[in-house]
Amino acid sequence: MQGIYLVTDQDLCLGRSLAAVVEAAVGAGIACVQLREKALPTRFFLNQALTLKPILAAAGIPLLINDRVDIALAAGADGVHLGQSDMPCETARRLLGPDAVIGLSVETWEDVTAAQDLDVNYLGVSPIFATPTKIDTKTPWGLEGLTRIRAYSRHPLVAIGGLNTANAPDIIEAGADAVAVVSAICSAKDPFAAARDLVRCFDVQP
Amino acid sequence: MQGIYLVTDQDLCLGRSLAAVVEAAVGAGIACVQLREKALPTRFFLNQALTLKPILAAAGIPLLINDRVDIALAAGADGVHLGQSDMPCETARRLLGPDAVIGLSVETWEDVTAAQDLDVNYLGVSPIFATPTKIDTKTPWGLEGLTRIRAYSRHPLVAIGGLNTANAPDIIEAGADAVAVVSAICSAKDPFAAARDLVRCFDVQP
Repeated sequence: MQGIYLVTDQDLCLGRSLAAVVEAAVGAGIACVQLREKALPTRFFLNQALTLKPILAAAGIPLLINDRVDIALAAGADGVHLGQSDMPCETARRLLGPDAVIGLSVETWEDVTAAQDLDVNYLGVSPIFATPTKIDTKTPWGLEGLTRIRAYSRHPLVAIGGLNTANAPDIIEAGADAVAVVSAICSAKDPFAAARDLVRCFDVQP
Repeated sequence: MQGIYLVTDQDLCLGRSLAAVVEAAVGAGIACVQLREKALPTRFFLNQALTLKPILAAAGIPLLINDRVDIALAAGADGVHLGQSDMPCETARRLLGPDAVIGLSVETWEDVTAAQDLDVNYLGVSPIFATPTKIDTKTPWGLEGLTRIRAYSRHPLVAIGGLNTANAPDIIEAGADAVAVVSAICSAKDPFAAARDLVRCFDVQP
């Protein structure tokens, strides 16, 4: 889990299809896609997953499903991203098996310490900065919070919340293994160029 | 699938816990419970299922989960009830296995004919009458629609929508194998007595 991690939001794609935006981002070298559909009925959520799966599989990029273990199982996705109000990680692991990728959002220090002994593949450090994309989050971690989590946690860290090419280098320097973005790619005039510029933020690291 | 089929709605339970209402209904001899939670985050939905499961298992009554195959798997529920916008039945069957109970709502005649070759355990004929509990439904079937479906379909039929002790006898006479209710039990002053009176509607049948 290293590189640019795209979290999808169909509503932010400026009328383009999610598949088109994801294909552009994949072409630019992103590392992971999380399909997030909080409002869609199950059938349409599943159809989105089934549409993205072959695009990502062909590129060797994991497809993770936000919250819904059933969608992940039905679509043959690589795993799930879980929030603190989603299914417990242990339960998701039991249903998805040992090889699935399971990510967990941490929004408080208690979440971080509780996650230390959990069988998860990464922590989603959320949000780094305040963002209009997600309004149900706790106090932003900031660079200081990310640094503190990096020093403590045994898990890979995916930073999310208000990230872009301007601040990504600092985020990576602070110890994020991956930089997650929503609007920085979904709402970009040119999603390929936006993804490419984000991917390049990792190139300059030692 | 014969008898009274309780569809839960925590919001209609007049401040009583869902478990208390379900226990009363189970004591009165209902045949099935469907846990429906359209608004709850996954973790709380799962907790409701885990609370109801032992109550129902002790009574030998199946617990079905509305829409969410992941909740059914995680809670060890007996199956799912699927709407036309939920996961396709074939997919749910693949995930849940051959012994799971899978019910499917039919709201149009096209739904009924399409269901004929599906591997489902019953059809939810919805709605029989207009009801304030569910506002996203199509034209009510009425007794005539139920009779027509009974003559055509190979599946057991669970009737739902505006049903109570006054109209249940006609619904059973028209061929429903089970009578599903929400508010008739959840919002009853005495859920045990309400469930008992509904269960008795089946006693008078030949």
